[in-house]
Amino acid sequence: MTHWIGFTRDGETGFGRLDGERIEVREGDLFGENRPTGQVLPLAEVSVGLPCRPSKMIALWNNFGGLMEKQGLSRPEAPLFLIKPANTYRPSGAVVAVPEASGRALYEGELGIVIGRVPGKTARDLTEEEAASHVFGFTCVNDVTSAAILKADASFTQWTRAKGLDGFGPFGPVIATGLDPEALTVRTLVNGRERQSFPISDMLIPVPRLVAQLSQGLTLEPGDVIACGTSVGSGPIPKGATVEVVIEGIGTLSNRFE
Amino acid sequence: MTHWIGFTRDGETGFGRLDGERIEVREGDLFGENRPTGQVLPLAEVSVGLPCRPSKMIALWNNFGGLMEKQGLSRPEAPLFLIKPANTYRPSGAVVAVPEASGRALYEGELGIVIGRVPGKTARDLTEEEAASHVFGFTCVNDVTSAAILKADASFTQWTRAKGLDGFGPFGPVIATGLDPEALTVRTLVNGRERQSFPISDMLIPVPRLVAQLSQGLTLEPGDVIACGTSVGSGPIPKGATVEVVIEGIGTLSNRFE
Repeated sequence: MTHWIGFTRDGETGFGRLDGERIEVREGDLFGENRPTGQVLPLAEVSVGLPCRPSKMIALWNNFGGLMEKQGLSRPEAPLFLIKPANTYRPSGAVVAVPEASGRALYEGELGIVIGRVPGKTARDLTEEEAASHVFGFTCVNDVTSAAILKADASFTQWTRAKGLDGFGPFGPVIATGLDPEALTVRTLVNGRERQSFPISDMLIPVPRLVAQLSQGLTLEPGDVIACGTSVGSGPIPKGATVEVVIEGIGTLSNRFE
Repeated sequence: MTHWIGFTRDGETGFGRLDGERIEVREGDLFGENRPTGQVLPLAEVSVGLPCRPSKMIALWNNFGGLMEKQGLSRPEAPLFLIKPANTYRPSGAVVAVPEASGRALYEGELGIVIGRVPGKTARDLTEEEAASHVFGFTCVNDVTSAAILKADASFTQWTRAKGLDGFGPFGPVIATGLDPEALTVRTLVNGRERQSFPISDMLIPVPRLVAQLSQGLTLEPGDVIACGTSVGSGPIPKGATVEVVIEGIGTLSNRFE
């Protein structure tokens, strides 16, 4: 299992492998050929950055059995999703300013699938078997949502705007490779108190099928993130609160919201 | 008025000013400082490329009086939108393969606003007055949509997936600067026959207010495109048809659909 991290130090960005509290810095293509620079940095001496730069973040709705049952929804035949734009991305540790107009924001802890690169192959129209090889690893996502904006217009649910404001898509702190997603549990803590805890095994569309279905007619690029949807326990973020999305085996995504 | 074009030649990409059938090649930042390289290329000797690379394409719904009335919709208070990801972008001249599963695709001719760069200022929380200076220019967009995918799930309208397939967001061929958008007319031709013709003056949220409202809590980046929504006359694209979105003063976006 490898933990890939992005960082900033003295105004320069870089990436490497996180080993406890140290980063083994590497150069090259995160999703292809890369090699150690020889430099080793203490984690405490860098700012944690985004672990990758997605060309798109695909965010799922209604993808967990627990939430589907609680809300009385029907089981979707295909992934139901919107896209969170790049202005939503923030690394772990970043402070997110919630705009006045969005009212109280909601936290939604989620597993993020990070797409990799398979030499000579494009991640499109994949079978489930092919899809597995296009999954590079996993990260933590907080799919922040403005409930006020979501339902402001009766004729058109504003999924994209409600989830698309600056800083509403933090992810990280790392991409973990070599994990079995079915064994993972997503926990969300608000000011240290656990508010969500749900198993990935409850996903309505499991990882390989999800990637395969999303890729039908739609190319997934290396570094793209699929936020797999949340389950029960989402709720409002009090002003000034710190929200942590914790997935054992990956790490803790921590952001304060002001 | 300047027409900015992107191109590919001998595997290299570049940009310049289109003057009739010739490109005055330039180097530097399209949205900032740039200068002539001295090279002039006949348009016929290059492949037309995207005129810019948006970090996001924001696509509006219900933004024209004519369509609102025809469909019996109410006037929106805020822009209603989704995001078309980068895999949808195609330049003028590209052939778009419509996936089998999406059924017959629909054309939607639209005006695209291209965001520029204002030194020292971020395009966020703008007033209408400020918004005007963040508009770099205008382009043509075909907001291609799969009607079958859009309504496949009764619980969640698949705006993003239906409009997010590969090649479903062609735009170009140029970005035209120095135009008054209120004077423009969008026309869509299918195999040379006019199917749409509507004035931008019928937009429910005119350009400066649209940019200002979208920027509330959401940063617009240089090169971002806002597809302003379509009006009446959208319809299916026959297999093999060529669709042209024509805006006098900008140019003709032409794509064949297979």
